[in-house]
Amino acid sequence: MRVLVSTIPFGLRDKTPLRLLADAGAEVVINPLGRKFTEQDLVGLISDIDVLVAGTEPITETVLSKASRLKLIVRVGIGLDSVDLGAARERGIAVSYTPDAPSPAVAELTIGLMIDLLRCSHISNLRMRKGDWYRYFGRRVSEVTIGIIGAGRIGSRVIKHLGGFECRRILVNDLDPEIVFPVHPTCSIERVSKAEIYSKAEVISLHVPLTSKTRRLIAGKEFKQMRSDALLINTSRGGIVDEEDLFEALESNQISGAAIDVFEQEPYSGKLAMLDNCLLTAHMGSMSVDCRAQMEIEACREVVRFFTNEPLESRVPDSEYQNI
Amino acid sequence: MRVLVSTIPFGLRDKTPLRLLADAGAEVVINPLGRKFTEQDLVGLISDIDVLVAGTEPITETVLSKASRLKLIVRVGIGLDSVDLGAARERGIAVSYTPDAPSPAVAELTIGLMIDLLRCSHISNLRMRKGDWYRYFGRRVSEVTIGIIGAGRIGSRVIKHLGGFECRRILVNDLDPEIVFPVHPTCSIERVSKAEIYSKAEVISLHVPLTSKTRRLIAGKEFKQMRSDALLINTSRGGIVDEEDLFEALESNQISGAAIDVFEQEPYSGKLAMLDNCLLTAHMGSMSVDCRAQMEIEACREVVRFFTNEPLESRVPDSEYQNI
Repeated sequence: MRVLVSTIPFGLRDKTPLRLLADAGAEVVINPLGRKFTEQDLVGLISDIDVLVAGTEPITETVLSKASRLKLIVRVGIGLDSVDLGAARERGIAVSYTPDAPSPAVAELTIGLMIDLLRCSHISNLRMRKGDWYRYFGRRVSEVTIGIIGAGRIGSRVIKHLGGFECRRILVNDLDPEIVFPVHPTCSIERVSKAEIYSKAEVISLHVPLTSKTRRLIAGKEFKQMRSDALLINTSRGGIVDEEDLFEALESNQISGAAIDVFEQEPYSGKLAMLDNCLLTAHMGSMSVDCRAQMEIEACREVVRFFTNEPLESRVPDSEYQNI
Repeated sequence: MRVLVSTIPFGLRDKTPLRLLADAGAEVVINPLGRKFTEQDLVGLISDIDVLVAGTEPITETVLSKASRLKLIVRVGIGLDSVDLGAARERGIAVSYTPDAPSPAVAELTIGLMIDLLRCSHISNLRMRKGDWYRYFGRRVSEVTIGIIGAGRIGSRVIKHLGGFECRRILVNDLDPEIVFPVHPTCSIERVSKAEIYSKAEVISLHVPLTSKTRRLIAGKEFKQMRSDALLINTSRGGIVDEEDLFEALESNQISGAAIDVFEQEPYSGKLAMLDNCLLTAHMGSMSVDCRAQMEIEACREVVRFFTNEPLESRVPDSEYQNI
């Protein structure tokens, strides 16, 4: 059985995932290009592959039409926007994922980016390198209204971390009343519309999947609704924020700053890198040693289950197929 | 009565401090140089001043010998390393400060810098600007051993913020057994020696005042005791970390990274700015709008009390005079 591992890095720090595959007798091909595959890369490699351990590369109808032996796709991560789920189902290809593993790492990075934006530490770091000493006035997490779009696995962890700060007000668009957050007694958590978050929050953090409903969720119209001191964080998926409109909003000071970890096209090489008030990171949300290992191990255990004819445990639920 | 305000910025966002001084009939001179005073600057300006509302500029014996009218120094902030307390006492000059006001802002910035260091987001931001996409492996706050040197007003707030994360292990060198921290049930807080923190912690954060005992607290010998993956945060005072030794420790990868907000000489223009693994900010620990206003207002209220012959409320305690 041939397994293609397209996600990179893979097995770099913790060798358990590679060992799991080897012990199961898999013939493993690790991404030979050392970068995210294009559709054409995948087309060229997929024909004799039985199982794909996938990153975020495009697994399209075209790719699947060449994948005559493919029986299982396991996404190392949570987002399914890169997989044509309908085309996979039509061909009887099972799709699994690792939805829980990345959450802790993404949520922690989000808090770090939030404080960076509020305190301008990233801008000071850029300026200090030019010998430019400027003491920025910042705002405290505890003093601002924080808007969370999407309070699922990751968004709700962000709120939990905020429990260690004496926050005033957290706005959430889809709060599950069953979840009780251990926040400070002075903090109110309010369920409001997205529009209210856009117009009232000083920090807006996105934690939704990329689907047809969330594509370009944040674009020119939404930026116009935001406060001039608003700060936007996207650690979810590129495509949810319109990058052209974000550039204009930041350049014209329509909003105050942004931290962007995910991009429409990755690796990113666009013009947001010209703006000091746009903190950029290279899709590192899930990139903590422990979470990455957990994601890879969970994915490989699913592959082993497939090899040994055990029932799959982390199949993508039917609800995800309805998001197509 | 003439009041010299040397600290900058002052009254920039919130005008209350300026109004308090004006209402009390003070003749106010705001730092005319727009930068931190040198000893010579102060010597030239101090002779006809009754009250000094001070930043971190050197208030030395030489300065005080020219300050024939000076009756009160109010430090906007907590550190007293810049004030020759003994020389002030000899001349009957009262010294007050605002020890509580900056703590919330410093503690929050520390958490942000901690996550930046653990996740390399500051390095990614630098590299993205050069079109350089690299997904750094990071560590999570929750997975590392965090060492806090000095658990006073600020250090203990840092620990409180960490309560929102599922930390494993926090080492503190001077834990007050009376303080109960609301940390996660899985977290242990241990009182250990400084040497144990140096050798065991993956994150070491400094929250001590600069005194004769803490000058060069962290230098070559201490760096040698640290783990190669150690990360150092200094939001307390320059002079506590030996900058030359820090440069060598970072350049030779003796430790993994540092975030430095305070410097021996400010504005800073040294060679740490050549190192990507050294996150630099311009003494912005206390620079949140709310904390800065609070510090300025508290300082000005003390000046007003002095003018109206009310008892001073925030005089520097005797214990500080023993740190000289």
